Amino acid sequence: MKNRVVTISREFGSGGRTIGRKLAEELGIPCYDAELIQQLAQESGFSEDYIRDAGEYAPGGYLSLLSNRAFALTNEDVLWELQYKVITDLAEKGPCVIVGRCADYILRDTADCLKVFIHADMGFRAKRIVEVYGEREQSPEQRLKDKDKRRAAYHRFYTNMKWGHAQNYHICLDSGKLGIDSCVEILRQLY
Amino acid sequence: MKNRVVTISREFGSGGRTIGRKLAEELGIPCYDAELIQQLAQESGFSEDYIRDAGEYAPGGYLSLLSNRAFALTNEDVLWELQYKVITDLAEKGPCVIVGRCADYILRDTADCLKVFIHADMGFRAKRIVEVYGEREQSPEQRLKDKDKRRAAYHRFYTNMKWGHAQNYHICLDSGKLGIDSCVEILRQLY
Repeated sequence: MKNRVVTISREFGSGGRTIGRKLAEELGIPCYDAELIQQLAQESGFSEDYIRDAGEYAPGGYLSLLSNRAFALTNEDVLWELQYKVITDLAEKGPCVIVGRCADYILRDTADCLKVFIHADMGFRAKRIVEVYGEREQSPEQRLKDKDKRRAAYHRFYTNMKWGHAQNYHICLDSGKLGIDSCVEILRQLY
Repeated sequence: MKNRVVTISREFGSGGRTIGRKLAEELGIPCYDAELIQQLAQESGFSEDYIRDAGEYAPGGYLSLLSNRAFALTNEDVLWELQYKVITDLAEKGPCVIVGRCADYILRDTADCLKVFIHADMGFRAKRIVEVYGEREQSPEQRLKDKDKRRAAYHRFYTNMKWGHAQNYHICLDSGKLGIDSCVEILRQLY
């Protein structure tokens, strides 16, 4: 039987990672966030066997074309393939929450996923990133626009799906309007 | 103080209207859908059938907009204005659920709205429209594509907002995956 996995995509500053952590804590299951997955992927990248295995998980289309010409892979492509394998392995191990890294797409056939998207308006997110990450030279609004654009492009490139399109998720929540704890509660009940 | 209103946008066949009615019943507040159309008909003098049809159709392309607007409002524009007034009046009267008719956009400044979008995959909706509305000459899939396209165009024309974009709503729910009763329960608790 497939494991139940919650995948969370989120706008930068929307509190998606916090929601994922709190939800996992309440459900008593592990939460893997983007940073952790990237770290696992990079660590595993030292093993040639792992890279070869990871290659088997490459999605079709453009990337698989790249995979056939190994010399043409960019660092991002290699990392994507490693992440692909890490995420598939984690979901096979047991129920969990996975934040970011296109996990919804990666697990579309291998796990019983609840696909979540968390977003919030610019004002809420601008306030939040300053509180959580501190001030930067760029304005919070500019940082948000920049990050959103990168995430959407990344998602589009590797999954060919539109990021933030309601139809791609089972539930989308505005954490600014509903509140972070309320989002956690809704997802806990759904799970 | 602003009244609490739940606005429900929905894909054709997703059960959005059923969810709205059940939710209103559980909350003990009115749900405006067919009633709203009736009221529009009375105020406008148009036939009820005309309004039901016209509500789904945005005026034609750019050229037709120019040629019509240069001289007078189209029937669709008059209908839009009437809907605008009726919906604003209903929301002023008291808490309620309003299904469709771009109510989320119309009430953006005049009510405390919970903006909901209900969607489901093609298979779920195709099965449902045959059950609810019966067979037609067109295939269910073609009817869905046609209706979705018209609704999206209508919404875009009058609100300049993208229909089905998660960021435009406080909560988006996949009624096919989550089930209609579960959607009602989530919204009831949020309200």
